[in-house]
Amino acid sequence: MQPDESLPSDLPVGALISVLYRHRNMLINARMAHLGISAGTFPPLMYLSHHPDATQDDIAMRLCIDKAAIARAFRKLEEEGIVRRMPDEENRRKVRLLLTEKGGATVRESTAIADAIDQEITAGLTRAAHGQFVASLRTVAQTIIHL
Amino acid sequence: MQPDESLPSDLPVGALISVLYRHRNMLINARMAHLGISAGTFPPLMYLSHHPDATQDDIAMRLCIDKAAIARAFRKLEEEGIVRRMPDEENRRKVRLLLTEKGGATVRESTAIADAIDQEITAGLTRAAHGQFVASLRTVAQTIIHL
Repeated sequence: MQPDESLPSDLPVGALISVLYRHRNMLINARMAHLGISAGTFPPLMYLSHHPDATQDDIAMRLCIDKAAIARAFRKLEEEGIVRRMPDEENRRKVRLLLTEKGGATVRESTAIADAIDQEITAGLTRAAHGQFVASLRTVAQTIIHL
Repeated sequence: MQPDESLPSDLPVGALISVLYRHRNMLINARMAHLGISAGTFPPLMYLSHHPDATQDDIAMRLCIDKAAIARAFRKLEEEGIVRRMPDEENRRKVRLLLTEKGGATVRESTAIADAIDQEITAGLTRAAHGQFVASLRTVAQTIIHL
């Protein structure tokens, strides 16, 4: 958007969440491109880094992303040399997802970029308002996953 | 997710925004299906209802959604009888987007559903925390669109 544009003052909560989500994705795409990471591959990569035993289906379910999109994301991560997909030793029909050495470095670098984005987007909040904002986001997220 | 599941307590701001966005989309898909509306068509429909002169390209840019996805959304809205697409009288290469009579009713009903979703997802906040949350969301959204 042009710098002189501003948001309508009456946008409801849901619309504000959409604005944040979509603009954050644009920042992720711009700032992580050199790592081979996009807004489509960043969340599944983060999830895998915290849950090394997760399958693609687990990740699709937990991130509420359809299975085809998750499959595309992991194909892309494999092409980038960030993840390897290997048949499970015990169940050959299952596929294990393994972070490569490069993948470990990519997780660290992309996490640092995401943290910097979070800091920049909340820079307009006082320290007290920031703490309250994160607590409220958590309360609302905890509510919504049970609706 | 299962009702006994909860979010990791250390999810950063960006990850919480993603959780909210994706779960809200699932609620929109479930609760607006009978109106012929989905999480993909709801935001462009809302935008058009507030900006009757907007073109598809305007809407794509303002909502940060790619042009192909916006074109698909308006084809779907046209199929549902919610929007008509007409060549502009003054510039035949431009296409005007017009809400039909049914479209006007759909806007009212889907807005009411979205408002109900917003109320439900913020029900865990006190009145004071709710006001602070909306103000902070607005501050952060205003910051992010200029990054």
